[in-house]
Amino acid sequence: MQHISSEQISAMEQRYRAAFINSLGGFKSVVLVGTANDAGATNLAIFNSLFHLGANPPLCGLIFRPDSVERHTLSNLEASGCYTINHLNESIYQQAHQTSARYPAEISEFEATGLTPAYKNGFQAPFVEESLLQFSVLFREKIQLSINNTILIIGQIQDVWIPENVQQPDGFLDLEKAGTLTCSGLDSYHQTKRLARLSYAKPDKLPDIIL
Amino acid sequence: MQHISSEQISAMEQRYRAAFINSLGGFKSVVLVGTANDAGATNLAIFNSLFHLGANPPLCGLIFRPDSVERHTLSNLEASGCYTINHLNESIYQQAHQTSARYPAEISEFEATGLTPAYKNGFQAPFVEESLLQFSVLFREKIQLSINNTILIIGQIQDVWIPENVQQPDGFLDLEKAGTLTCSGLDSYHQTKRLARLSYAKPDKLPDIIL
Repeated sequence: MQHISSEQISAMEQRYRAAFINSLGGFKSVVLVGTANDAGATNLAIFNSLFHLGANPPLCGLIFRPDSVERHTLSNLEASGCYTINHLNESIYQQAHQTSARYPAEISEFEATGLTPAYKNGFQAPFVEESLLQFSVLFREKIQLSINNTILIIGQIQDVWIPENVQQPDGFLDLEKAGTLTCSGLDSYHQTKRLARLSYAKPDKLPDIIL
Repeated sequence: MQHISSEQISAMEQRYRAAFINSLGGFKSVVLVGTANDAGATNLAIFNSLFHLGANPPLCGLIFRPDSVERHTLSNLEASGCYTINHLNESIYQQAHQTSARYPAEISEFEATGLTPAYKNGFQAPFVEESLLQFSVLFREKIQLSINNTILIIGQIQDVWIPENVQQPDGFLDLEKAGTLTCSGLDSYHQTKRLARLSYAKPDKLPDIIL
């Protein structure tokens, strides 16, 4: 195996290290976050830092770098108190990636990339019409992580829209049926192929394949 | 599309809601976390909450539920100040899943599941010999998230071991060459198939496929 020491990591050129460390954690969730300001101007940004924080109440976390293009998303969601999360599929991942370009605040990434804002149930933040799995989130808490000044945004999941055949009898969502993609590093997009679902693990018994 | 309202989510049976909400965020990183206590007793636990927090210094986050089996991991890493992260591959995912069974503290999940502890460079925490991508982490910070009493553990990445052919010229790791898996929900394991890597996005120019 190849060994890379912490001294070698410290000495890496900045973009090389970013590509390396961003790959190291494994495959990640990749989503589009939709927001709007009070004047109705929309913003759309790709994130690969969404994570599960709890099921009851249903909470998710999102990491923001203070110096990134994602600041329009952050200021919008803090002011409006709401945002949408939209899964990527093969038809839109190139447009989704393009939302990470540094457009000025007055340009909507929806218009710039050709994705379509959709409004549902009076929610202020726009969904992505072309996304097949979408949900609305209410902003709950902002935590500044002093160790490197990143910002953790915690939100509470509200309404969910999924294709008709995706939810299984036990509540699980078959994300492959929704065409949901995963990502690795900063720029690599992947489809998935299920190996198995495994039964709840108990001591002294190996898990069964349940699907 | 099927609409699921926040009222319906609140009314869901507990395990059904857990399966549903854990699926909603998309595909996730899934890793084995290795720890040891001061007497050298080892612990191994599967996590699907690892996330990237920064490249310089190289930081990662991990979410712990206070009431879960993962508490042996938490007490070990707080006491020893260190842990290892080990990617899953097809050969070990069933054993990895089995580490989530509620073994008593005196039983090592290495022995119970047949995975092999490996020690490197004098690091106290054990690696998983059968894992093809491994790294050591120093415990840096513990943050209690008051919103639902989950715990965020922040760690700093130290030494990394990867297969020889995985790192690309720009620093990116080709995780498919390491056989790294992803997961969805609480129990579904997936291989991946790359669609493309896309070039750094700039306004007024669509991204190129770079690999």
